[in-house]
Amino acid sequence: MTTVNRVFNFSAGPAVLPLPVLEQIQSELVALPGVGMSVLEISHRSKTFEAILAKAEADIRSLANVPSNYKVLFLQGGASLQFSMVPMNLLGQGQTADYIDCGSWAEKALKEAKKVGTVNVAASTKGENYSRLPKQSELTLTPGAAYVHVTTNNTIEGTEYSTLPQVGDVPLVADASSDIFSGPVDVSKFGLIYAGAQKNIGPAGVTLVIAREDLVAKSAGNKALPTMLNYSVHAENTSLYNTPPAFGIYAMGLVIKWLLDLGGLPAIAEINKRKAAKLYAEIDRTGFFRGTANKDDRSLMNVTFRLGSEELESKFVKEATAAGLDGLKGHRSVGGMRASIYNAFPEAGIDALVSFMQEFERKNG
Amino acid sequence: MTTVNRVFNFSAGPAVLPLPVLEQIQSELVALPGVGMSVLEISHRSKTFEAILAKAEADIRSLANVPSNYKVLFLQGGASLQFSMVPMNLLGQGQTADYIDCGSWAEKALKEAKKVGTVNVAASTKGENYSRLPKQSELTLTPGAAYVHVTTNNTIEGTEYSTLPQVGDVPLVADASSDIFSGPVDVSKFGLIYAGAQKNIGPAGVTLVIAREDLVAKSAGNKALPTMLNYSVHAENTSLYNTPPAFGIYAMGLVIKWLLDLGGLPAIAEINKRKAAKLYAEIDRTGFFRGTANKDDRSLMNVTFRLGSEELESKFVKEATAAGLDGLKGHRSVGGMRASIYNAFPEAGIDALVSFMQEFERKNG
Repeated sequence: MTTVNRVFNFSAGPAVLPLPVLEQIQSELVALPGVGMSVLEISHRSKTFEAILAKAEADIRSLANVPSNYKVLFLQGGASLQFSMVPMNLLGQGQTADYIDCGSWAEKALKEAKKVGTVNVAASTKGENYSRLPKQSELTLTPGAAYVHVTTNNTIEGTEYSTLPQVGDVPLVADASSDIFSGPVDVSKFGLIYAGAQKNIGPAGVTLVIAREDLVAKSAGNKALPTMLNYSVHAENTSLYNTPPAFGIYAMGLVIKWLLDLGGLPAIAEINKRKAAKLYAEIDRTGFFRGTANKDDRSLMNVTFRLGSEELESKFVKEATAAGLDGLKGHRSVGGMRASIYNAFPEAGIDALVSFMQEFERKNG
Repeated sequence: MTTVNRVFNFSAGPAVLPLPVLEQIQSELVALPGVGMSVLEISHRSKTFEAILAKAEADIRSLANVPSNYKVLFLQGGASLQFSMVPMNLLGQGQTADYIDCGSWAEKALKEAKKVGTVNVAASTKGENYSRLPKQSELTLTPGAAYVHVTTNNTIEGTEYSTLPQVGDVPLVADASSDIFSGPVDVSKFGLIYAGAQKNIGPAGVTLVIAREDLVAKSAGNKALPTMLNYSVHAENTSLYNTPPAFGIYAMGLVIKWLLDLGGLPAIAEINKRKAAKLYAEIDRTGFFRGTANKDDRSLMNVTFRLGSEELESKFVKEATAAGLDGLKGHRSVGGMRASIYNAFPEAGIDALVSFMQEFERKNG
C-alpha cells in the first residue's frame, strides 16, 4: 500500500473511517479475492453478497450482544427517513408517541412524527438551545404510549446520554446515529435503535435498524404502508426486499470487524473516554476556551466549544485547517467549534488538536 | 495497478462497472488527491463534495442534454422507493394516474401507486407473461391524467421500448433503471425519469431522478408528505437536505464521465446495438436456443433465452459459470437464461458467450 498524506478529519459526518478498513476496501476494490468482480458489481442475490450480509449481521450481533428476539436491518435514507418510518410503523391510531426534544435532530424527528399521528413532547430543552439534556424528573410520559423517542447523542449541541431515560414498559426508540457502538449498549433496554452509518460505523448511504420482533411485527400485513417503508417487509426479506446499499453494508461490516478485533465495545469505550477527557481538560484549563454543553451532559463524540469572539473562532478554524486539522467549524445553526471524535478518530489527532489549542492560546490569549 | 483476474459478469444488477472507473476509485480510495481524506469520509457540506456533486450533475446534463427546466436529483431507496414517491408527489386527489403494465417491475410500481390514489391500468400484457410490450393502439389513456407511468426496459422479461408511448400532453413518467443512458434520450419527452444506478450508471445505493420543474413544484409546501419523500425539498436543497449517498454519487459521476469520454450516448448506443445483435443472432441461428421476448420488443440490455429443457438450462448455467461467464441464470420468476449486457459490459464478454453457446450446442444439440 502506498503511503498517502491524510489529514485529521474532525467532520461530524460523514466522518473519519479506520485506516485499515479503507486499505482493505482499496486492496479488493477492483475484484474481491476469489470472486473476480468488485463488491460494487456483484448481484445482491449472489452467494458472495449473501455471505457479506450475513457476516455483517452476525458481527453486529456479537459486538453488541443483540438478543435473538431483535431483528437487524440494513436500510437506506439515513436517520431522516427513520424519522418517518418509526411513527408510520409503530404509532397506531388512537395511540400517542412521546418525544424527548433534546436537540436539533430530535426536533426534526418530532416534526415528522407529528405528520403521522399524535405526539406528546415529554420534555424540551429547546429554550436553552439544547445545551443540556432533560432530567428524568422533567419527563411527562404518557401511560401506555406507543413508544418514547430519544436522541442518545446530539451531534450539533454536543450532549450525550450517559444514563438512559427510564420509560417503564413503554418501548424506548433511539436515534443513536452519532454514538452507536461507541461503548457498551444493553440492546434489551430498547424497543428500536436506528443509526445512519456515516458517523461511527461506516460510510453514508446505509442505515442500521435494530428492532424488537414484536415492534417489527406491528407492520406485518399492513397493505396501506409503502412497501419500502415497512419494517416487517425488510425483516421478512432479510434486508433484500429490493437491491440494498451493498457497498455500504460491506464497508459497515469491515468497520464492525475492526471494532471486534480492537476488543469490542468495552475497549472502544475506554479509548473514547480517554480521547474526550484530554480535549475537555484542555477546554476547561484556563477559560480561554469555553465548552457549550452542560458539563454533566457532555458528549464523548462531539465536543463543542467557543472562543471569546466570532473573529477569533474564524481565525482558529482557518489556522487549524491549514495545520491539517479539518472540519472543526461548528454547525451553522450554533456557530463556534466542534470536534467530532468518533470511534475511528485517532488519538494522535486529539493530541495534535490539544497542542494546536495551546499554541493558539499562547498567540491570541 | 496490479492485474486482477476478472470474470465476465452478466448480472442484472448490481452489474458490471467500467474497469477504468473501478481503477480510479481504487487509486484514490484512501485519500482523494489533494484532500487527505477518503471520499467515504468527507463531509457532504465540504467544498470537495459540493464539487463532486456539481460535476456529476453537470456531466449528466451534458450527456443527456437535459433541458434547463428539469431538476437532477440524487436520492436513495432505488426504483422501489420511487414507486411510492412518484404517486405521493404527483397524483393529486381526484386525479387518475395511468400505468402501462408491461413487466414485473411495472406491476410493482402499479401496486404501490394504488396505495396512494386512483390508478388506471392503461394496458397490460401480464396474461402473456409480459413477453411483449403493449401496442400504442392497446392503450386506454385517461384524458387529463396526472401522468402515464411506463417501464422503458423490462429487466426480467427482456423487453425494451424503442419508440416511446404517445401520451399527448400528459406527463410521461419512466422507470428507466435498466436502460438509462444506454442510448440517446429526448428528456423533454418525459415529465420525470427515475433510475436505480446499479445497472447502467453506478453502484447500488443511489437513485437518479430527472424531473420537470412544474412536476417538482407540485409538492412544494406539502407539509403532510414525509420530508424525505418530497421531491421539492430535495430539489430546493440540491440533494443535500440530509446526508446523501456520497460514495454512490461520486461513483456515478465517474461512470457518466466515462460515457462522455467514450463519445456520449450516440457512441454507447452503437456499441450496445452491436453487442445485442451478436447475441440475438446466435440465439436465432439454429433453434437450439429460443429467445423469450417478442422479436420487435427485444431489449438491448437484458437478453432472455431458453433451452429445450430445464435440465439443459441448469447444465448451461453451471458450465458457463465454470468458464468465467457469471450471472446467466434467469430471474427466478421466469427461469431460463438472461444475459444482462449493460453499457459497461465488455464486447469481449459477448464474444466469449457466443463461443460458449456454439460449443454447448455442439456438445448437447
